[in-house]
Amino acid sequence: MQMNDYIELIDHKLDEFIPIEYPQTIFNSMKYTVTLPGKRLRPILCLETCRMLGGEVNDAIPTACAIEMLHAQTLIHDDLPCMDNDDYRRGKLTNHKIFGEAIAVLAGDALLTWAPQVIVKHSKNLEPSILIRILNEYFKFAGANGVIAGQVVDIESENNQDIEDKEKTLEYLHLHKTSDLFQLAMRSGAIIAGASDEKIEAVTEFAKTFGLAFQVADDILDEISTFEQMGKTLGKDKLEGKLTYVSLYGLEEAKCKLSCLFEKCHGIMEKQNLKSEIIVDMIKKIKKRAGI
Amino acid sequence: MQMNDYIELIDHKLDEFIPIEYPQTIFNSMKYTVTLPGKRLRPILCLETCRMLGGEVNDAIPTACAIEMLHAQTLIHDDLPCMDNDDYRRGKLTNHKIFGEAIAVLAGDALLTWAPQVIVKHSKNLEPSILIRILNEYFKFAGANGVIAGQVVDIESENNQDIEDKEKTLEYLHLHKTSDLFQLAMRSGAIIAGASDEKIEAVTEFAKTFGLAFQVADDILDEISTFEQMGKTLGKDKLEGKLTYVSLYGLEEAKCKLSCLFEKCHGIMEKQNLKSEIIVDMIKKIKKRAGI
Repeated sequence: MQMNDYIELIDHKLDEFIPIEYPQTIFNSMKYTVTLPGKRLRPILCLETCRMLGGEVNDAIPTACAIEMLHAQTLIHDDLPCMDNDDYRRGKLTNHKIFGEAIAVLAGDALLTWAPQVIVKHSKNLEPSILIRILNEYFKFAGANGVIAGQVVDIESENNQDIEDKEKTLEYLHLHKTSDLFQLAMRSGAIIAGASDEKIEAVTEFAKTFGLAFQVADDILDEISTFEQMGKTLGKDKLEGKLTYVSLYGLEEAKCKLSCLFEKCHGIMEKQNLKSEIIVDMIKKIKKRAGI
Repeated sequence: MQMNDYIELIDHKLDEFIPIEYPQTIFNSMKYTVTLPGKRLRPILCLETCRMLGGEVNDAIPTACAIEMLHAQTLIHDDLPCMDNDDYRRGKLTNHKIFGEAIAVLAGDALLTWAPQVIVKHSKNLEPSILIRILNEYFKFAGANGVIAGQVVDIESENNQDIEDKEKTLEYLHLHKTSDLFQLAMRSGAIIAGASDEKIEAVTEFAKTFGLAFQVADDILDEISTFEQMGKTLGKDKLEGKLTYVSLYGLEEAKCKLSCLFEKCHGIMEKQNLKSEIIVDMIKKIKKRAGI
């Protein structure tokens, strides 16, 4: 499958997996952010990992879509006035600007339990013990030891001059805020494919590195892009005194770091004999946007 | 076991199941609301149902505690300024008054995935297929078809004169806002005990009725109690034009409804030969507080 085929498949399934039931407001709100056009990197990485490791792509579709729902959940709550207070996301008004804050809070909450329901309900070919493994991955990376840990450290690092080890803190927050969902995507794709522990470890390492690179690229784009290119308000990191690769190391050093991280990604794929034109293509596109 | 033994056991386990890890802020915030002293009705009903139906109470402890964590999650998000905007809960400052809104949002999110992790991690005696059944109950009652559906209809009914069938709307919102967590507690207790479908249906009916009664009692107490008795700000329902049993039927009719619902509860227990002094005692206490 090509990148666009994957996106089309995922978009179709995301729509199918969130029907509009009563009370419609909550389903409309959940669906609104989940179905905003996006690159679908996380679900694609889940499906591609399953395929690369010899699994059936169809078996991974519910899990891939659940991870995109979880990603949308983090966006909805991140954009709230009490968090990043963003009015735009992917070029459209953010969830709370359309539905109000109360419904946006509840829509995020609802996605956190809707996503694992999609996994259980639609993964008919997966044994209960495999489902439990996938759900455990989901709970861990979605939770207080996962993406939320990253968000908390992000909030605490804002305008905080007392951080002892800024480099370590920055790596921690990027690893959790960003890499965790990539790890969840690739690890669960590998588990569904029935991969060995060695392969699962390899894709975990890849996902950590890819996630860090993705976040460095995001920091660079926050500095060099325009609203039209990104679909969200930019330059806020600097205004809010956020700890970013660019604020810590400068633009050139960040670009250097980005190249280096993607080299490491290629190295892991080569060593493990993992072949994916789509992932190679993804990396090329991210590098191009970041101007390297 | 007596009521106080249950409370002591649950409080001990709730403390154990939420260790303070890094970043400490999020774990402190989760733990703060979960460990506020409470009546622990939901976890007790889970454990008592398991016991009444011949199961091992110990097998149900992680699930019972997870349901109390889910209950705390709904309280944290309900109390937010964009929702009910409450400063006090169980006589103490609400989560966002202590930790700030951003952390309170994240603590609620974190509990939604921490609770099912507790179930999976600590229920060593339960088969994967039983775990999946319990998790499905959790996702359903916690989510967009469960307690969140009730909260959405509650928000939409505030100061809304256009509701066509107020009685039906009130019953819907009480069933979901309140009965759903009691259903989750008793159904999962029954499933852990290996109960028949007939028994599961019976405890479901009991839990629905008990939940409605509990909410009618809450509406009455909002009208007749003081802050000192309840530990939260009262009389807000009326001020905010909320749809309640008391606003719809008046105080006397609400008391009558409460008696009638509890009679139905006793009827179900008798018919199904379910014996629990603790549940009988719970009902007595709620009636007494509501002045009947």
